[in-house]
Formats: sequence, C-alpha cells, structure tokens
Amino acid sequence: MPETPVQDATRGVTATGRATGLVPPDAPPAYHRLLERLGQVSDLHAATTLLNWDEEVNMPPGGAAARAEQKATLNRLAHEAFTAPEVGQWLDELAGWEAQLDPESDAAALLRVTRRDYERARRVPPDLVAELARASSQGYQAWVEARSQQRFAVFAPALARLLELRRQMADALGYPEERYDALLEGHEPGMRTRQVRELFARLKEGLVPLVQAIAERQDRVRDDFLHGDYPDAAQWEITLEALEAIGFDFQRGRQDRSIHPFTAPLATGDVRLTTRINPRVFGPAFFSSLHEGGHGLYEQGFPAAWHRTPLADGASSAVHESQSRLWENVIGRSREFWRFFFPRVQARFPQQLAGVDAEAMYRAVNRSRPSLIRVDADEVTYNLHIMLRFELELALLSGDLPVDDLPGAWREKTRAYLGIEPAHDVEGVLQDIHWSWGGFGYFPSYALGNLIALQLWEAALRDEPGLPEEIARGRLGGVLQWMRQHVHRHGARYEPLELVRRVTGAELSEQPFLRYIRRKYGELYGL
Amino acid sequence: MPETPVQDATRGVTATGRATGLVPPDAPPAYHRLLERLGQVSDLHAATTLLNWDEEVNMPPGGAAARAEQKATLNRLAHEAFTAPEVGQWLDELAGWEAQLDPESDAAALLRVTRRDYERARRVPPDLVAELARASSQGYQAWVEARSQQRFAVFAPALARLLELRRQMADALGYPEERYDALLEGHEPGMRTRQVRELFARLKEGLVPLVQAIAERQDRVRDDFLHGDYPDAAQWEITLEALEAIGFDFQRGRQDRSIHPFTAPLATGDVRLTTRINPRVFGPAFFSSLHEGGHGLYEQGFPAAWHRTPLADGASSAVHESQSRLWENVIGRSREFWRFFFPRVQARFPQQLAGVDAEAMYRAVNRSRPSLIRVDADEVTYNLHIMLRFELELALLSGDLPVDDLPGAWREKTRAYLGIEPAHDVEGVLQDIHWSWGGFGYFPSYALGNLIALQLWEAALRDEPGLPEEIARGRLGGVLQWMRQHVHRHGARYEPLELVRRVTGAELSEQPFLRYIRRKYGELYGL
Repeated sequence: MPETPVQDATRGVTATGRATGLVPPDAPPAYHRLLERLGQVSDLHAATTLLNWDEEVNMPPGGAAARAEQKATLNRLAHEAFTAPEVGQWLDELAGWEAQLDPESDAAALLRVTRRDYERARRVPPDLVAELARASSQGYQAWVEARSQQRFAVFAPALARLLELRRQMADALGYPEERYDALLEGHEPGMRTRQVRELFARLKEGLVPLVQAIAERQDRVRDDFLHGDYPDAAQWEITLEALEAIGFDFQRGRQDRSIHPFTAPLATGDVRLTTRINPRVFGPAFFSSLHEGGHGLYEQGFPAAWHRTPLADGASSAVHESQSRLWENVIGRSREFWRFFFPRVQARFPQQLAGVDAEAMYRAVNRSRPSLIRVDADEVTYNLHIMLRFELELALLSGDLPVDDLPGAWREKTRAYLGIEPAHDVEGVLQDIHWSWGGFGYFPSYALGNLIALQLWEAALRDEPGLPEEIARGRLGGVLQWMRQHVHRHGARYEPLELVRRVTGAELSEQPFLRYIRRKYGELYGL
Repeated sequence: MPETPVQDATRGVTATGRATGLVPPDAPPAYHRLLERLGQVSDLHAATTLLNWDEEVNMPPGGAAARAEQKATLNRLAHEAFTAPEVGQWLDELAGWEAQLDPESDAAALLRVTRRDYERARRVPPDLVAELARASSQGYQAWVEARSQQRFAVFAPALARLLELRRQMADALGYPEERYDALLEGHEPGMRTRQVRELFARLKEGLVPLVQAIAERQDRVRDDFLHGDYPDAAQWEITLEALEAIGFDFQRGRQDRSIHPFTAPLATGDVRLTTRINPRVFGPAFFSSLHEGGHGLYEQGFPAAWHRTPLADGASSAVHESQSRLWENVIGRSREFWRFFFPRVQARFPQQLAGVDAEAMYRAVNRSRPSLIRVDADEVTYNLHIMLRFELELALLSGDLPVDDLPGAWREKTRAYLGIEPAHDVEGVLQDIHWSWGGFGYFPSYALGNLIALQLWEAALRDEPGLPEEIARGRLGGVLQWMRQHVHRHGARYEPLELVRRVTGAELSEQPFLRYIRRKYGELYGL
C-alpha cells in the first residue's frame, strides 16, 4: 500500500536528508510572510466559527442582528486578507524555490493547497458574492415561508434566482468539463461531475433491488423498544460516554446542544460538537453524537505543526463525512460495538431495555425501511436520497428541468428509488435547507463519504483483521490509531481521490460499500 | 437640572429643526465612510469579546494557545483599522462640516468621541504595545509563581519592568499635569489625577473614623446564618430571579458561570453576565450577579441607533461601576429591597433561613468589618482598599516608592486605614491581578464608581422620592427607568465629570456617598 514517509515535526527531515517540515531552514522571507498571513486568515476563520457556534448554542434572540454584521465583517476581512495582491506576489516569488522542494514535503503541500485556494478565491467576483449573500438570505426566508404554507411555489422564484447566480458563479470560477464541476470543486477538490455520475449509477444499480427486497420483509427487524421514555439527562450522559469510548478528547473539545447538530472546529485543540435529544426515542441523539464525534476525531488528529495553516483541515467534505459515517454506522451500528456497549446503555435505561439483549439492540438500530426524510434515512436508503438530489441539481443547473417542474420530478424519483411518495412538499422537495441558500454541489459529498468510509474500513481490516474483535472487547483505540495514521495526519495535503488511492491502493469505488451493505443487511433481513 | 433634549431616532430633529440624529441628511461621504469603518472596528471588538467570554465560560484547556493567537490577531486588526491614515483624513475632511453641527447632536458627539479616541490610539507606539504584551504575559506568570511561593520578591522584577514600560507609554501618550493622568485618561476621559487625589483625601477623612467605630461594635450585626449549606442549584435560580427583578432582559442577554465574574457586552442586544457560586455561603454569588447585572442593564440601555459606534459604550469605567454598585449595594443591600425580596430567598432556603426575617437579612448582608481582601470588602471599607492602591500606584509610578519597598508600604497603609495587617503577601500586595499585567490607573474607577452611584441616587430621589417605597413593593422599574433616561441613553456621549454635572447639577463629590454611609451604618451599628 503506497504511503508517504512519516513527517511529524515542523522541521522534519526524511531518510534521504531532504527537509520535509513546514518551515525548511532555507525558506525565503516571502514564505514566512505567507505563513503569517495564512495564520491571520485562520484566526479570522476560527473567530467566525466561534460566532457561528455561539449563535446556535448560546446566543439570546436579541443578538441576531449584530451577529449577522459581525460575521459579515470577519468573513470579508478574511477574504480580503487572503486574496490581497501581495499574497499572489509572494506565491509568484516562491515558484522557483517551490520547484526545488521535495514534492512530498509539508512546505510543498502547503504551497500547492494555498495556490489552489488562492486562485479559486481570486476568481470570485466580489459583486456576485454580495448578490448571492442577499439572494441566500431571501431564499432562506422564502423557503421558511413555503414550508409554513406547504407550497413549493412560494419558494420557486427565489430558487430560480439562486440557480441563475450559481450558474454565473460557476462560469466565473471556470470548469474543466461541465458547469457542475465548478460547484463540486468547492467541496471535492480535483473531482469531476462525470466521476460522481458514474459512481452513483453503479451504486444505484446495486441499491434499488436491495431496498425493494428489504421493504418486503419489514417484519424481520423490530425496534419498538427504542420508542418510549428515554429521559434527556440519561441520554446526554450516554452520548458523553460514547464519545469517551471512541476516543474524543474532552481536554481538546466539548459537546453542547443545538437544534441542528454540527461540529465547529475552533482549533485542533478546541473542537466543539453539538447534539439534540428527543426524550421519546433512543437512537437519534446517540448516533448524531457519534457522527459529530467522527468529524471531531478527524479535526483533533491534524498535526499540531500545521496549526493556523490550510493544511490543518479535512481533505474534502466527503473525506470528512467518511470519518463521521465510519463512527456513526460502520463502528457505531456494528454487532461488535453493541456487544461491548449495550450493557452501558442498559445500565442507564434498565426499565426501557428490560428483556432486550445486545443482539436485539444491534438489530433494532439497523432497521431499514424506505422513508421520505433524508436525515432519518438508514444506511441502505440514505444514498438514494442523495442521488435523487444530485440528479435534480444537475438538471436544474443545466436548465433541463424548469424550476416549476421540480416537485413533480422529486415525487417521481422518490417513487422510482424508494417505492414511496411524499404527501406534500414539506416532506418532499422542501425538506432540506441546502437549496434555500443556494448550496448546490454539496449533496454528493454525503454519499461519497459513505463510499470512502467503507473503502477505508476494508483497507484497515486488511492491515489489522483483529479490529472487530478489539471493538467487541471495548478497545476502540486501534480503529482511531489506524485513521490517525492513514487519514487524519494528512489533513488537507492530498485531494480526496488521491488520498483514497494512496491509503487504499485503489481508485474510489462503490464496491466496498455495496459489499458491506449486502453482507450486513442480507444477514439482518435473510435475503 | 440641566438635561439634553431627547434624541431617540437615527435622524432625530430638535424643536428648532436642527438635525440631531447620528446620520444627518447632509452628512458628507467621509462621514459615511467613517461610520462604516467604526462599524467594522466594533465588529472586531465584539468578536474579541466573544473569544474572551468563551475562554472563561466554555473553552477546553487544549484551546488556550490558539485562543491567544486569535485574540492577538483580532486586536491587531481592530487597532490597524481604527488608526489607519484614511481615518485621520476623513476626520480632517469633516472638520468644517462638524463645526456647523449642533454640538448636542449625535453626529457631533460621535465625531468628538472618535477624534479623542483616534488621537490617543495614534500616539501609541506599536513596538511599545508589543513589548507591553510580552511583559504582561511574563508579569502574570511571575505573579502566579510569587503567589504559589508566597514571596513578593519573585514578582518584583516583572513589576519593575511593567512600571518602566507604563512610564514610557504615559510619556508617549502625553498628559496635562502629571504622568498618572495619561493612564487615568484611558479609563476616565477628561479626569485629572489631582481631582482624584482631592476627592479621595476628603473621602478618607470621613471613612477612617467610621471604620474604627464600627470595628469596636462588631457584636451589633450577626450574619452567621449566611454560612451553611446553600446548594448550588437553588443559588443559581435565585440569582436569575434577582436579575429578572431588576429588569435584566434575558431576551438580550444571559448568565453563565466563570471563575471570576464579569460582564461581556457583545452587542446592546446580547449582554453576557457571569457569576460564581460557593455552596457554603449565601451572599457572594447573589451580590456578584446583581453587580454584573448592573453593568448589564447599562449595556442594554444604549440607544439602538448607536449600535456599532463608539457612542454605544459606557461613559467611563467609573460610570460603569456606578451602575453595578448601585444595583449591588444601594438597591441590593437596601432595607426596602429585602422587604420585597426576602420571602423569595427564604422560599428557596427554608431550613437555612428558618427564624430569620427581612430585617435580620438586611442587617446580615450589610455586616461591616475591616478585612484584608478587597473583593470581599463591605461598602464602608471598600474604598479604603482602593485609596491604598491608588496612593501606592502614584508612588511607584513616580519612583518615590522603590518596588522592593512595596510590601512594607502595603502593610503600613493597611494598618493605618483598616487597623489590621496581612500575615503574608498573598493576602496583601499579591492579592489583585491588575498589576500583574501592568494595569495601573484602573483602581480609582472602582471608588469613583461608588461616589457616582450615590450622587446619581440622591438626584434620582430628588426627582422621585417614592422610589424606595416602590422598591419595597417589588417595583424596581422606576429606578431602571430613571437610570435609562439620565445615564444609559447617553452612552459615551459625555465624559464622566460632565455626565455627573449634567445629570445631578453638581460637580462630582464624595459627600453623597459619605452621607449615605453615615446614615446607613450609623443606624446599623448605633453610632
């Protein structure tokens, strides 16, 4: 399996004696200036992340107007500081020195990533950004109103406007093959729409028959005992216990509550997770905490020396999602995990789980059935929700699908992929917030993350076949250690497809995911 | 009583038809640019305030290093944005237009305050700021170490260095009469050391005999029932109830916990208070919440139209302190307040307060006795702690008192003013954090705040003699309304001495405070 040499210090040196650290001894002044600027930009981003986190976790209602202005100012200052002409001059000055660097060195990686981000950021027309900000705000309001009226038509004009602006943005950014590439690039550097389309086509082919087979055997798995009285305080405690178990470092992070769970990385040493608890059901909060915990472990795993640089970041949204889905599903919904963890949950809910055993719990948390709402979907059906959105986004962006025809197309595809149909738009085309602010191009990352998670997991099992047994005995450190070594410590050094290739020795593929799903759900549903 | 005309809208107009609002219709472009810049600077300050608040309230230990860098970057950007040459050019361009403005208009006030702050900020040498930041950090570490060793000598060299740098800073800033003026100006604009010295001399003359008389009658007031089992949760609830009672708006603020209580104003609509609870005693947390609540009411009372300008700020540290001490002591330790509020406290602590009545509670929370620690001092002795520090600061800054002689001078003055002496430096000269980071010039504001609180209170009672009776009936809105109208709505428009003059019709004086203390404690201790 190809791997890069270990580089762990600021001034690391490889076996061949070449400098590999972030700051080589012969770094020119322009490089130091660049690092200083990147540090400032990183500080502004961190402060903005705190403003966002606080808004969801703590802020009283009266703070909303001022908060919007504070965020706008910090965002603008960060953009100005990063796209200032002198940054381009430093990058130009450094080109000769960069050519001499070991391409595997940290310094070379930093310059590659910085150059890529700088060139993209410079192509963004400031006026278009301002117009998109306005349209996003109006789009969000229209979406909220449309949901309250249960009428897509209320949102349609704002959506059309957002699409038009995103087309303009894509054209300003440029793209190698098709317009959607420009939007995808913002989340999955180096990836093409064509590749996503091909992966998803094969994935769909494997999933749709499986979903139909499972839908016909709904009586095989029961989860009724997960619904009942699961008090808030005990659920909160068990989420903390689970985060401890997977290795989340509470000296370098914390968990709070918010309406929509998310992860806010303020620094490698300060990673904030949130969760949401429904005291009438066990599961959503627990798996949401594991999910955000997976994001958090990734953020806590970046090399300390990369602090305040763009390298201390995930390789892409999909790679980030691979880490959250790994802990939420591949580990957190595994039979081995529940062999270890079930007694702890049962100890906190002895009445609610009387007569339930680890195997029953394992089956319950893996119940699969077609549902209308993406965020509630199980492992089998989830990716179909994503493909539906991806296909509709492509058709909307190209203009092949007029905005007014979107609800009908949504219903048609839901029926084709899941065999069910939304009764109204709130549980259909109006369910996701993403399009309300013009967030096209993000959905694929969710499904790609699922694929990457399983491809990484197969590689980890090849390296260490004993990992599942370790998990069953409550030793989750081996999994984390493998991810730290093969994924986390690389931060944003590699583009996602390259990272997958280097770590697993193969191109990104849907096959590991399909193998996993067929084996696991074949057994659960007796297929 | 002289008062300014009411101005409540952005484009207010006086009876004479002259524009008084913040943005007059004929405002030149330079004025709009200035406002925009001030808004950005305000946003950066707000983000820094959030970084500070979060550090004390939420941050995990692993976030410390990154947080220091984030704060340094935002502070530097705010300073650069405010002191940029174009700000001076705009102010120059606006001089002619400004001369035509009604001097009582918001726009004229904004330009006055901005010009004053700009000129002061421009005089600060950047290198000296950087050196002071380093010396502060080293000073703080030396202070912590000196406390752990109970040896002032460990801190002495760092203190000497900080004094030297502060002397340089004072010389760079300039001063009208004496060096200390330059430091005082940062907290009390327009005030002179000479004025503080004179006020304090008369105040000391009145207080020292009173402290002695009270010390001889310690048996007159008992507070033993305040010590015992006062559970954390019930104390937390009663602090929230008290904040509600005084009118703190929880839609525009919140309370949290921190080791050192403080107020963090993120915006007029988002004011954060903190408190600290000791479950072995009733009082410290309660009055600390009232104290921070007083700061919070001031911040919540600035005109909304002044949002993101330097006018949305306290007139000075002392005026800010006048508001916190008013609610903590003048209201919160009044017989009328306890007539109203005692049943609420007793309902939460029925065992602990069995057999206690409102009058006994009133007496207990006003128990006075000389003590060594400033932050634990009562209303009578508190100002003597401040005067001691003020006198020592003056002597240190002038060089009349060598740093090595400071502990002896501290002991001597403590004996002279309070009749007691610290056993070691931790309860003496090493007790306050202020000097550890070079914070000379701030202490006077604490005592001046007490004086201003009583001078304002006398004025309020002249206007509305029924206020105490309202308080006894649980109606605290009248007090808040008066402060809103006469103090809060002026924000930073007037310098502190001018504000006092305009609101009370008299020069700042120690007499209202002395009258209040003599009456209240004369009765409590039968003097």
